[in-house]
Amino acid sequence: MAAGLQGVGPLLLALMLCVLGPLGSWGGKLLVVPLDGSHWLSMVSTIQQLHQRGHEAVVVTPDSSVYIKERTFYTLKRYPVPFKRKDVEATFVSLGRSAFDQDPFWLMVIKTYKRVQSHSAMMVSSCSNLVHNKELLASLEAGGFDAVLTDPFLPCGSIVAQYLSLPAVYFLNGLPCSLDFAGTQCPNPPSYVPRSMSSLSDHMTFLQRVRNMLITATEFFMCNLVYSPYALLASEVLQRDVTIQDLMSFGSVWLLRRDFVKDHPRPTMPNIVYIGGINCASKSPLSQEFEAYVNSSGEHGIVVFSLGSMVSDIPEKKAMEIAEALGKIPQTVLWRYTGSRPSNLAKNTILVKWLPQNDLLGHPKTRAFITHSGSHGIYEGICNGVPMVMLPLFGDQMDNAKRMESRGAGITLNVLEMTSDDLANALKTVINEKSYKENIMRLSSLHKDRPMEPLDLAVFWVEFVMRHKGAPHLRPAAHDLTWYQYHSLDVIGFLLGIVLVTTFITFKCCAFGCRKCFGKKAPVKKTHKTHKSKTH
Amino acid sequence: MAAGLQGVGPLLLALMLCVLGPLGSWGGKLLVVPLDGSHWLSMVSTIQQLHQRGHEAVVVTPDSSVYIKERTFYTLKRYPVPFKRKDVEATFVSLGRSAFDQDPFWLMVIKTYKRVQSHSAMMVSSCSNLVHNKELLASLEAGGFDAVLTDPFLPCGSIVAQYLSLPAVYFLNGLPCSLDFAGTQCPNPPSYVPRSMSSLSDHMTFLQRVRNMLITATEFFMCNLVYSPYALLASEVLQRDVTIQDLMSFGSVWLLRRDFVKDHPRPTMPNIVYIGGINCASKSPLSQEFEAYVNSSGEHGIVVFSLGSMVSDIPEKKAMEIAEALGKIPQTVLWRYTGSRPSNLAKNTILVKWLPQNDLLGHPKTRAFITHSGSHGIYEGICNGVPMVMLPLFGDQMDNAKRMESRGAGITLNVLEMTSDDLANALKTVINEKSYKENIMRLSSLHKDRPMEPLDLAVFWVEFVMRHKGAPHLRPAAHDLTWYQYHSLDVIGFLLGIVLVTTFITFKCCAFGCRKCFGKKAPVKKTHKTHKSKTH
Repeated sequence: MAAGLQGVGPLLLALMLCVLGPLGSWGGKLLVVPLDGSHWLSMVSTIQQLHQRGHEAVVVTPDSSVYIKERTFYTLKRYPVPFKRKDVEATFVSLGRSAFDQDPFWLMVIKTYKRVQSHSAMMVSSCSNLVHNKELLASLEAGGFDAVLTDPFLPCGSIVAQYLSLPAVYFLNGLPCSLDFAGTQCPNPPSYVPRSMSSLSDHMTFLQRVRNMLITATEFFMCNLVYSPYALLASEVLQRDVTIQDLMSFGSVWLLRRDFVKDHPRPTMPNIVYIGGINCASKSPLSQEFEAYVNSSGEHGIVVFSLGSMVSDIPEKKAMEIAEALGKIPQTVLWRYTGSRPSNLAKNTILVKWLPQNDLLGHPKTRAFITHSGSHGIYEGICNGVPMVMLPLFGDQMDNAKRMESRGAGITLNVLEMTSDDLANALKTVINEKSYKENIMRLSSLHKDRPMEPLDLAVFWVEFVMRHKGAPHLRPAAHDLTWYQYHSLDVIGFLLGIVLVTTFITFKCCAFGCRKCFGKKAPVKKTHKTHKSKTH
Repeated sequence: MAAGLQGVGPLLLALMLCVLGPLGSWGGKLLVVPLDGSHWLSMVSTIQQLHQRGHEAVVVTPDSSVYIKERTFYTLKRYPVPFKRKDVEATFVSLGRSAFDQDPFWLMVIKTYKRVQSHSAMMVSSCSNLVHNKELLASLEAGGFDAVLTDPFLPCGSIVAQYLSLPAVYFLNGLPCSLDFAGTQCPNPPSYVPRSMSSLSDHMTFLQRVRNMLITATEFFMCNLVYSPYALLASEVLQRDVTIQDLMSFGSVWLLRRDFVKDHPRPTMPNIVYIGGINCASKSPLSQEFEAYVNSSGEHGIVVFSLGSMVSDIPEKKAMEIAEALGKIPQTVLWRYTGSRPSNLAKNTILVKWLPQNDLLGHPKTRAFITHSGSHGIYEGICNGVPMVMLPLFGDQMDNAKRMESRGAGITLNVLEMTSDDLANALKTVINEKSYKENIMRLSSLHKDRPMEPLDLAVFWVEFVMRHKGAPHLRPAAHDLTWYQYHSLDVIGFLLGIVLVTTFITFKCCAFGCRKCFGKKAPVKKTHKTHKSKTH
């Protein structure tokens, strides 16, 4: 194509580029192997945009999916799994509830282990049912796809992509146990790159660095429980030995929902594209219902409160404490809550089953945002410039909260330990102390000041992989080295060996020289010895 | 500003963004401390573009500059230096000529050392005359600049920026001795990242990795000759201890004229922006003179030949060899050459003092490009898709040539050793063997398929630094660690210490236990001993 364009005048080419975008738009075909839950919600706008640019997307999902539903901009292919939608919903509810468990540490560890084990078994079973579904795989094989778009948090999409010999684009918020950095061969120095879920920052004390190092040394083994079944499954399906690392490193381009306003600056790789804040793009005007709530809030404005889609209810005592705190501030509070209504709910607090979070945060009357500090919420808070009170519950939420707090853009509270007064005071502080608004506005202006919108960037790189059947020129040669070669241990050993041998020979030569010199100083004895040795 | 925009409706904001570009265009003020020679030629289009976007640029240069001249789109401030323009020109000519010296290795090393020493002394003197020019510095201090744009190849701009407390944007092709990666705290594993001027690739044999490691271990000291005078100068001017590392790490954003079609994929950092191929953007129609040459070339088309601006003449014998080779191909050869005309020049070869290289390479009748493989020429060859015959002379040219050759896009010849037939055969091969054209076209399509033009990216990041007075959110915490902290040596030592102490205590406990057990087995002797020790 580029050869054909050589003869076209630069003016015509420029015109084409303006109309069609880089290298023009064409109808490609994309296979999507997504992950249910909030992971899907962040990916869907990219698929929609790709559809608008003339591509066809086929989304493959188990028939038990909760969030992945029929939409006009993709074809949904469901495959049967031996569990129901309500089982998946139950795991989501259980995850949400577990955040409010006040168990002793040992019991919490056991419960978490069991929950992860059971949820993981369900997901592996789902993947197994996909990669053993001959009919579905045959139809995908005949589908003429250009690439696979998938979230490698559970690497089923990678197995499918390798089975179909298609390049893969990974779309993710990050992976536990530094698997994302292992998969991209991205250096990850534990001295200033805090491990995920460690609640550490990039400036660590000596003991924090020790802790980070210990996490680094053990994290790979900790993730084995979840990830090793996929390696086994892949080895079986692809009929060769496949490691977790192989599954991860298959991604041609990694679309990472991060940016360096929220996250600490760190080494990166050429095939990692930062699309943090991609979910802020889709804004709509408020519905009449919400417009009315906002307008009636008066000069004090509103506070938006959501603990995310995974938390459906809160223990009654905690809900009442929260309700009491919300009643102490003059703002109108819009609280997304599907649990039973706390009996002490104040007049200023409106419970809703769902709220247009990003649209509400974008309203100039919004004064604060109470959030569980999931990555979606944090980015929406940043891009709309709303100070936050953060109640992290699980996963990376504590890390997110710590980062925002350290930048002076919000206050973090422990949801289990906080009192009603703590929450009310935190809200009053972020609303009334100017520094919080100033800091979040500064972060917002940095976050939004970028050469290209993250959604356009994501679409560009998906199309790039579709156009070029991958991105091998961005794949570092580190993938072809063993761990000891990568760290030059063989080279260091060899050079040390040379130094040792040289030192040894030099030492021996010196010793020999000394003996000679010593011999000259005591000629009689030496001559005698030499004579003796010669006569032997 | 962002706060003020909160109240503006999204539609109006979108309209503003479309008209003004990201966050709008405004009149900022930029101080440019450039480097003479080809370094300047690659930077100038960015300054022009910034001028077009309403910014004012002041370029500061010694009055001996060769390439930096008055232009309409910036204000030139010359300062006096104790040498003349002809002295600088002489160093350029001497550098060009040295490439054709056929000296034994030891003499070449001595000559190179002397040349670097003398050129470096001249450059340091130039910098010293700038930072000691009180009048000029006072006028710059009063200039109200937002940022400094400079090439850190010689870090005079960094001293000026630090003196004026202005953030700096670095614009460069790369630095010798990995100073660029030291300055950005970018990991640089010697196992697969070849050191510059090593002619190694990213896939190395064991012995090549040993060589790369040895270069890594010594390169910092090798650059001391050139760079340590700047650290001394900076320490004097800024009145505090300044190291080379301090000068380098001052850059807020690094605009690196590289990309991963030419260069091997490797770790990078968030404040490194890749703008390789920025010089391809400026294309103009051919003048009547060159249009006539091209049109009269017939079906065979043309070959473009230039050894860059630094090579003014070639030893007569070599020039005649080259002329002979050019006479053996059916193409018309346009040879940029300012030396005396070789007596055997064939009819198909046209000598010109200057040629519009990028415009000629972009012409569909161009069949091949004979180049010294400087980064400008290589990118112009890639973006116009022209197979190359490469005659690298010095600096990074051998690396560039090796990379293009390994991708099947050209042939590298040793200009000193090649015969007339070698050159003619290489030309015939790259012109007639389809694979060369196919490979360069593939590279070209990858290189040009990017989310944003490199010139726009460069302009964006200069403006970003001007808008936000730097980019501290992109500065990794690694800058605040000592080298042993960065590599976690203190943490590893501490943990090893704990392991050793634990092992020692365990061993002692075991030994004590064994003695007890042993004592039971041989009660008489033990009792005797114990008794004996007690009685002592």
